[in-house]
Amino acid sequence: MNNFTFYSPTYFVFGKEQENTAGYYVKKFGGTKVLLHFGAGSVVQSGLLDRVKASLSKEGIEFLELGGVKPNPRSGLVYEGIEICKKNNIDFILAVGGGSAIDSAKAIAAGAKYEGDFWDFYEGKKHIEDAIKVGTVLTIAAAGSEGSGDTVITKEEGMLKRGAGSEALRPVFSILNPELTQTLPAYQTACGATDIMAHVFERYFTNTRDVEITDRLCESVLLTIIKEVPKVIKNSNDYEARANIMWAGMVAHNNLVGVGRDQDWASHEIEHELSALYDCAHGAGLAVIFPAWMTYVLKHDVNRFAQLAVRVWGCHMDFAHPEVTAEEGILCFKKFLTSIGMPINFKELGAKEEDIPVMVDKLGMDNRTIGGFVKLNKNDVEAIYRLAL
Amino acid sequence: MNNFTFYSPTYFVFGKEQENTAGYYVKKFGGTKVLLHFGAGSVVQSGLLDRVKASLSKEGIEFLELGGVKPNPRSGLVYEGIEICKKNNIDFILAVGGGSAIDSAKAIAAGAKYEGDFWDFYEGKKHIEDAIKVGTVLTIAAAGSEGSGDTVITKEEGMLKRGAGSEALRPVFSILNPELTQTLPAYQTACGATDIMAHVFERYFTNTRDVEITDRLCESVLLTIIKEVPKVIKNSNDYEARANIMWAGMVAHNNLVGVGRDQDWASHEIEHELSALYDCAHGAGLAVIFPAWMTYVLKHDVNRFAQLAVRVWGCHMDFAHPEVTAEEGILCFKKFLTSIGMPINFKELGAKEEDIPVMVDKLGMDNRTIGGFVKLNKNDVEAIYRLAL
Repeated sequence: MNNFTFYSPTYFVFGKEQENTAGYYVKKFGGTKVLLHFGAGSVVQSGLLDRVKASLSKEGIEFLELGGVKPNPRSGLVYEGIEICKKNNIDFILAVGGGSAIDSAKAIAAGAKYEGDFWDFYEGKKHIEDAIKVGTVLTIAAAGSEGSGDTVITKEEGMLKRGAGSEALRPVFSILNPELTQTLPAYQTACGATDIMAHVFERYFTNTRDVEITDRLCESVLLTIIKEVPKVIKNSNDYEARANIMWAGMVAHNNLVGVGRDQDWASHEIEHELSALYDCAHGAGLAVIFPAWMTYVLKHDVNRFAQLAVRVWGCHMDFAHPEVTAEEGILCFKKFLTSIGMPINFKELGAKEEDIPVMVDKLGMDNRTIGGFVKLNKNDVEAIYRLAL
Repeated sequence: MNNFTFYSPTYFVFGKEQENTAGYYVKKFGGTKVLLHFGAGSVVQSGLLDRVKASLSKEGIEFLELGGVKPNPRSGLVYEGIEICKKNNIDFILAVGGGSAIDSAKAIAAGAKYEGDFWDFYEGKKHIEDAIKVGTVLTIAAAGSEGSGDTVITKEEGMLKRGAGSEALRPVFSILNPELTQTLPAYQTACGATDIMAHVFERYFTNTRDVEITDRLCESVLLTIIKEVPKVIKNSNDYEARANIMWAGMVAHNNLVGVGRDQDWASHEIEHELSALYDCAHGAGLAVIFPAWMTYVLKHDVNRFAQLAVRVWGCHMDFAHPEVTAEEGILCFKKFLTSIGMPINFKELGAKEEDIPVMVDKLGMDNRTIGGFVKLNKNDVEAIYRLAL
């Protein structure tokens, strides 16, 4: 096991009607002047935003509003948010929404405490050392941003999608009410579930040996998703299943299931170009890329893929031909994705073969490799895109 | 799923040689004048205490020492520690040792910020609202106190063993170096492993339905313990196995594997009377009590015991007779305990039948029941002790 540190100081408030405690928690964590940050549409229409505002007002907390966060959140709104925070001495940002609203809030939180251009953090020029405190009211189980120190932003010029991370960005509290996810369409629910699974896979495929506890924790999350997601695709109002998925989404990405080992985030990078170019849901892009990545790297560690197939997909081990079991596991994954309505290739996603060179180009692979489990060069990445056709 | 909050803000520092960072982390978390709290013997002889002191001195941190913590830590030393803290304006307590040293440190930390008798907290008369910051350098995987807000202390008069808990008692940092556990005798290692399993079982047996994610997380820890413990019983120096067990011990008790459901801590209470009376290791007492408790309550939810048998012990489900599978699981647990050198009955532990009324009496069962999965009255508790003969 590799040496590691693990720090997940977020105060999680989970369950029915808990959005009404938002004001209480902002106060508990020292917020006095809040920027309320959200997308549009459903958060407003459902009355959620009004309930959160009422909760803030009840505690006498002053707030400004900045809505309009888009999926694959953009740098333009981040600059706007930073400006508002600096001008108004905002000391707390409360994100109401999914991963996009939270990631955007984190970018604003870091940018507001920095003299330079916040994009420096996303280009890797600077590490985030300080940020305004962020709290969240989560509305979709997917990104895990409610419990992580990570953020992904897309820069409009060139549609560059890049990530940054820092302990300073872990939300001080996150409110998770599964009821809020019951109105999500099946497609978005499935995209979220795929993202959750991807977060686990990216930690599961490692060259670090004998980290049994982390393997088992990874498998817990996958087994839960596989059992619970079909229930909510069938019955959107299944609270218990929604609750399991929502908490699994947090566990999948606060890094508990990744400690003590090398990880492999190549698939996320490869996918980012898909969602940046086509503005598709991140989860849908992952459903296309991940099976292709798995097929491409399978030979690197057949037994690890066989372990996944047996422990998670319930396949029987073919001891004479472990690669058969390994491949069966990937097939189960694809079937599962299809069963919940996800695309599993370019065609189903609406992506085009002729754009592959553009995506490879944008990834900037000329002088680097990506991935920890298997190091991928430019040709490998192109081959994975082609496997996904 | 029940509504819940989850808060585990401890900064975990895991891996080889990490005790040398103790001074760095005390400083990071604002400690300036430290009480170094520990047991005796191995911590001193191994040179660990000297390394920790050197680490504090390197950062220019002043410290006082209070050694002598015993297993099943006593109130006498706690009073002494509180006195030292109050007189010397101690602002940080660094526990070096196992659950006993940490639990004692937590008691001192709470007592030093309280005007009354610290025992009020353990009798349930007062809730702990404030405490001096506690950090830990862990030397045995067992109690999980390094990641929890819990503490158990024994009062000398009457050998009363009682627990208390508060968010204020969660260590601000915990250093976990598996190397430090390599010198543990097999018996102590096995006692620790049994304690870890018990912490999971107490959360696994619940009447709250459909909390799949928590079930699966529980099973992860159990599967890891079952795989890794026999390795270290065979080869004390197996670092990878030690590392898996040490991290599993934390995960088992920071409450991640217990959220969203009712829990059942009756077995811990029933055991406490054993270790208070015979001063035996807590884990050894649990190895005696837990299978008896399981056997006694099995009929309350046969399928839950069958699930444990199938998913954790690898039993085949007898669909026509689930109770057969359920019982097989308990038998597997007993065999496992025996295989790692644990006692599984009064005789093997050296406990006496004639003491049963004394223990029942001390539990003070006349006007209360214990347990959440099955509510146990005085007669039930006595029957469980007798099943363990």
